[in-house]
This record gives sequence, structure tokens and C-alpha cells, in this order.
Amino acid sequence: MKIIVDAFGGDNAPLEIIKGSVDASKENGVEIILVGDEEKIRSCAAENGLDISAIEILHAPTVIAVDDDPTKVVKGMTDSSMSVGLVALTDGHGDAFVSAGSTGALVVGGNLIVRRIRGIKRAAIATVLPSNDSPVMLLDSGANLDLTTTSMVQFGLMGHIYMKRVLGVSKPRVALANIGVEETKGPQLYTESYQLMKALSDYNFIGNIEARDIPMGAADVVVADGFTGNIILKMYEGVAGALMKNIKGIFLKNAITKIGALLVKNEVSAFKAKMDYKQYGGAPLVGLKKPVIKAHGSSDAVAIKSAIMQAKYFAETGVIADIEEYLSQGEDNND
Amino acid sequence: MKIIVDAFGGDNAPLEIIKGSVDASKENGVEIILVGDEEKIRSCAAENGLDISAIEILHAPTVIAVDDDPTKVVKGMTDSSMSVGLVALTDGHGDAFVSAGSTGALVVGGNLIVRRIRGIKRAAIATVLPSNDSPVMLLDSGANLDLTTTSMVQFGLMGHIYMKRVLGVSKPRVALANIGVEETKGPQLYTESYQLMKALSDYNFIGNIEARDIPMGAADVVVADGFTGNIILKMYEGVAGALMKNIKGIFLKNAITKIGALLVKNEVSAFKAKMDYKQYGGAPLVGLKKPVIKAHGSSDAVAIKSAIMQAKYFAETGVIADIEEYLSQGEDNND
Repeated sequence: MKIIVDAFGGDNAPLEIIKGSVDASKENGVEIILVGDEEKIRSCAAENGLDISAIEILHAPTVIAVDDDPTKVVKGMTDSSMSVGLVALTDGHGDAFVSAGSTGALVVGGNLIVRRIRGIKRAAIATVLPSNDSPVMLLDSGANLDLTTTSMVQFGLMGHIYMKRVLGVSKPRVALANIGVEETKGPQLYTESYQLMKALSDYNFIGNIEARDIPMGAADVVVADGFTGNIILKMYEGVAGALMKNIKGIFLKNAITKIGALLVKNEVSAFKAKMDYKQYGGAPLVGLKKPVIKAHGSSDAVAIKSAIMQAKYFAETGVIADIEEYLSQGEDNND
Repeated sequence: MKIIVDAFGGDNAPLEIIKGSVDASKENGVEIILVGDEEKIRSCAAENGLDISAIEILHAPTVIAVDDDPTKVVKGMTDSSMSVGLVALTDGHGDAFVSAGSTGALVVGGNLIVRRIRGIKRAAIATVLPSNDSPVMLLDSGANLDLTTTSMVQFGLMGHIYMKRVLGVSKPRVALANIGVEETKGPQLYTESYQLMKALSDYNFIGNIEARDIPMGAADVVVADGFTGNIILKMYEGVAGALMKNIKGIFLKNAITKIGALLVKNEVSAFKAKMDYKQYGGAPLVGLKKPVIKAHGSSDAVAIKSAIMQAKYFAETGVIADIEEYLSQGEDNND
């Protein structure tokens, strides 16, 4: 699989992106195309002793910044690393695209350059979160504020296919994020989506899930509108971050607590690794014709490598073909 | 101050409610009226050796269950402990009302029996959350799904007054919960509320706050619609609960980690106390003509006592008079 990587996306570009790409390129069946200013990529690699001889470089002179207007990806900055990468993906020069750059620009570029699968109304950012049990896919995590019930139902379907194919969950439990389990709870978008999902036999809809049960792993796929999904995602990060900071403070308090810290060091490290979003690489944009992965803006080399591996699985497990097949059946059966 | 307490609300009623009421009644300036089935209250107190001689009892034979239709509080179950308590509050038999019963019924009863302050469009559930810094008031935490910008602005005002008066925060930082700090972020309700709040000089509006910064204490008052607010609240509970469970598991893993646990025991207890929602008692319903406090459904005697003390401060600090005064000025100035 040939993975196209935006060398200039994210807070740690280009060094950590190049590092992660070099590491990933050593894995079986992974070829990398790095997109960005060729001279800068070559000099950064040389300065840091990174051997990029096995990596193809696709030149793109500019970079879309996080605070740039996201629509610049299709007008005005089409020579940016993100635009050039998305065009290369669309034209078949690679099998998947990874970027840690502007989420907004990636969503716009995904929709307008790569384009959506026929029949899919909206593409979603699908974040994979750690839970006390197995990982949970949350979609939409922030791509769309205004959605119809059709999109909510499609998000459930795409989450189901992704978790089954890429993460190997045999019968993913799909739930609606809500403020109570009763079917009458929540805004109209939610009560109506509930009824449509309940009537479907295409996936295992388990009803509403309260936000407090998400971190316990009470569902494998959690469907929400992009505003709510983003709030869930950010609360997850925020509460976990605040608590871990407090716990660190506890361990560093005095000589006795420092000894206590030493005694639980290995277990705390294992726990931190389990809760680390980086292990899951990044958030796939589901609903597009080709695999696009949004890596976290603060990704280091390890996170970039994970995102590249995730892009590979996304491409080779046939998630997109499955979604297309389902939608074409729907067309035959329903309209 | 005379606090009316619903003896039959919550998972641990009536025993923990009676216990908490007895404890609170020993505090200076607190008188208690317990509402509920008088015989049951007396026998429960007698069986558990609780001296309720200083407590007034107001008889109410039935109880509204959490899964009952919330409107029963005003039609069909007006002899319930919640209805009788709210009517007693409205009629001036006490200064505030505390219930750990059905949130939905308390919201309906608050609006229809106690009634809203003139000019207030919607009453909000205002939850006080712990943060790494000082406590944060989140409103609305779940009373209203459909809101107008006027209500969002009013929530900011009421949060400002409550945090100033009851929690002594000198210049509360009021923020909108959102998915980014830019003023263009979020659904229309949020972008329009942003502009209105920005134009006000009545409180210290600091703009949008991302959900991840709430647990760090980046604002004193966080305004959201009831759906979003409830999701924030439940994520707070859920992530904290899941992490604490994991940390407990780490400490119990083996003989060495158990020794480690002993060495940090005091600090962990202090931290748990700091993060315990029970310390803040309950969630005031702000916007009503009289103080009503919703205690957590799982409240024990300690939480009930805290909720009663909070009801006392709510009543005696003049929060409601302040809101009324502000609104009457608004009438003079604006329309």
C-alpha cells in the first residue's frame, strides 16, 4: 500500500512527520510519498540523519496554516502540501492520505477534491477513543454542525463497517450519544434518528447511550452530530488531562509519595499507554471515495507511524467498497 | 432559614435524607421541614435512632418516581412529596426547597408551581463542578433542549450573580461552551449568543471556551444549551469515574503496588474529596421566584446536608432579588 503523507501538517512538522514516515516505511507492505517543499524535506532529513532514500517526494511549496480559511485548500492555495496530497490521492498515485494539518481544510478538501461516496450525504470525522473496555469510534467528531437523520443513520453504518473491518469487532454495538436512554430523549434529530436506526437490520443498534457510559466502553460506535461529538471528544481529553495532572501532583508531593510513585510506576505507564489516543493513530474521514486520516495536530513520530499504519488497514480492508456496496443495494431495494 | 426537604426523593430515600436533614438542623440558622409520608418518616427515624423532634413534618402520601411522567407533579400526583413541598415553598412556609427526586418533575414543578422570575424566559439547572482550580458553574445542565439567544444571555447573567453571591467569586469569568474559541464557531444559537454577550457590560464575558478547558477551570460560569450541558456534565462524571476505577485497579494489582497505595493514601483521599461533586451539594434551579435545589439522585446524608446548606446560602444571599433587580432595570432602559 502506498500512503501519501502531508509532511507539513501539525505542530511538529516536518521533523516528526518525516521520522514517523521513515519508521513506517520499514514495515512490510508500506510505501510512503511525502508531500511538501522538497528542499526543506531533504535538508531536515539530512540534518537529523534520517535516511529517506526509500521515500518518494512530491513537491508542494506552500502550507495551509491552522488559522487559514479552510476553503483555501481548493482555491488560492492549491499548491499547498495538503491540496497536492489530496489531488495525488484522487488521481490514484497512492492508496490513502494522512495529514496532521488543519482539520477544517482537510474536511473541505476531502469533500471537494476526493469527493464523497455516491449516496453518502456527509463525511464524518470518526475518532477512535480508548475506553475501559475496547476502543470506541465516535462520529461525527466535528465535521458537520447541521445534519439530517439520513446522515446520522449513515454514520452508524459507516462506523459499523469500520469497526468490523479495521478493528475486528465482530458485531459492533452502535449507539446514539444522548442525555438519557429513553427513545424520547434529546432534540428532534436524535429522536427521529433513533426510530430510523431501530427500524434498520443493517447494524446492531443498541439505542441511546448516556455520555457517562462512553468511557466505560458501553458501545463500540457512538453517533452524534459534529458539535456534540466534538464536545464529547474534548471533554474526554480535558477531564483525563486534568486528572492525570492532579495524580502526578499527588505522586510528587513529598518523599513518601515519591516512593509510592516508584512502586506503581510500571502499572501507571501501562495505564497511560492504554489511554493514549496516539496508539489509534488518527481519525479517519469516513464517507469519502478514498481513505483520508486526520492525525492529531500534536502528533509525534510514533503517532504519525500509527496513523500511517491505520491508513494502510483502512485502504486494504475494503471499508470503502463495503460502504459502496451497501449503498448500491439500498438503491436497488428502496428507490 | 427554613428549608423544605423532599424526604422521598433519590435512591437513598428516606433514610439518608432524614439523616442529612437531622445533621443540617443542628447548624446555626437552619430549620427543616421534611415532606413525605409522615408515618414512614417517623418509623424510619425511630428504627434508626434519629431524633427528629426539632424537625417539622409536612405530610404527603405519594412519591413521584424517576420514570413517572414529569408532568404528574402538577396533574395527577399533587399529593406527592415533591408537589406538596413546592406548593409549601410557593406559599411561603419555607425559604427554599431541596429534592433528590426526578429532575424532570422538579423542572416542571419549578416552572409551573414556583414560577419563573418576571422576564426570565427559561429556568436552568446550574450544576457546580469541581475543576483543577476553583468550582465551575455549568448552566443549563439539562432543563431545556430548545433555547433562544435571550435565554443563553440570561443564563450567563444568572450564573454570574450566583457565583458572585453564593460562591464569593469577585468577577466571575462567563464563557460559552463551544468547539473552538473563534466567534464564528458553533451552531447559530452560539454565534448569535456570542455577539449579544460580547455587547453586554453586565458581566465579564470572556468568549468561547473549548470543552477540554472546562476541567482546568478556565471559566467560572459556562453557558450551554441543556443538551450540550448535560453531555458535558455526564462526560465529566464518566471520564472521572472510568479513570478512578483504573487507578484503583493499578493500586490493587499486587503486593508492591498495594504498598505504593498506602504511601499515597492521604493525598489520594484529599484529591477524591476535592473532585467530589457532593461537596457542592446540588444543582440550583436558577430563574425561579424561590430557591430550589436539585440534589444528585444518589445523594447520601452528607450530600443532602450540603444541598441544604447550599439552599440556605442561595436563599439568604439575595441571588433572586439581584436577578429581579437587574431585569427591572432592563425594562426601564430597554423597553
